[in-house]
Amino acid sequence: MSDDAARIRALITRWAEAVHRGDLDGVVADHTEDVVMFDVPPPHEGIRGLAAYRATWPPFFDWQAQGACFDIETLDVTAGTDVAYAQALLRCGTPEELAERPTLRLRLTFGLRKERDRWLIAHEHHSFPHD
Amino acid sequence: MSDDAARIRALITRWAEAVHRGDLDGVVADHTEDVVMFDVPPPHEGIRGLAAYRATWPPFFDWQAQGACFDIETLDVTAGTDVAYAQALLRCGTPEELAERPTLRLRLTFGLRKERDRWLIAHEHHSFPHD
Repeated sequence: MSDDAARIRALITRWAEAVHRGDLDGVVADHTEDVVMFDVPPPHEGIRGLAAYRATWPPFFDWQAQGACFDIETLDVTAGTDVAYAQALLRCGTPEELAERPTLRLRLTFGLRKERDRWLIAHEHHSFPHD
Repeated sequence: MSDDAARIRALITRWAEAVHRGDLDGVVADHTEDVVMFDVPPPHEGIRGLAAYRATWPPFFDWQAQGACFDIETLDVTAGTDVAYAQALLRCGTPEELAERPTLRLRLTFGLRKERDRWLIAHEHHSFPHD
């Protein structure tokens, strides 16, 4: 694995741990000001800008506090010299939901840019399949 | 816009036109053998490999033949020297569906690699929000 891929893997792992702790500053620590997120809920046109991205998380943390997990199961990083993307599958649900639907996975795709030798997340796409 | 971004924009535009024509060879013309697709329907773990990717399209073409559109509304490309990603919003639905839910958008994220001076799609993530 390239050094860049290893750095991005560490960044996304830290991000997921911050999500699971409900640590809002940790969640937004490595994002660009112009981040665009396609989230699980609407709006259909996406969440645009770091302030709007930040505002999506407290309702998720409230839901997560019911005992839901947010665990990376697979993470694949494709790192170029200055742009990268990554895709991941996560177990994300309450114990009751995952008992009922054991194959349920949250799918994540990240787009990243390297700025001043630092990787930053500029795009996230979160979704569940429509059964 | 960089030359790479313009080439990727043209590639994705051709791909969407091939999807709308139901032109399967056109749809798979610029993909890697190891493409990974997170599709709207299951499987939750994704579609892996070009043969599996190809097999997802005929059922979509059958549905599209009811008169559904597949029109790119916005497309943003972030191209590095050797890796790129792009995000797009599409109008995708039958006239009845879009009349009932005018804000409905298909969200797409693409991951691309440059191989022998040619851009190829190695990852696609397709989703609708969960309302």
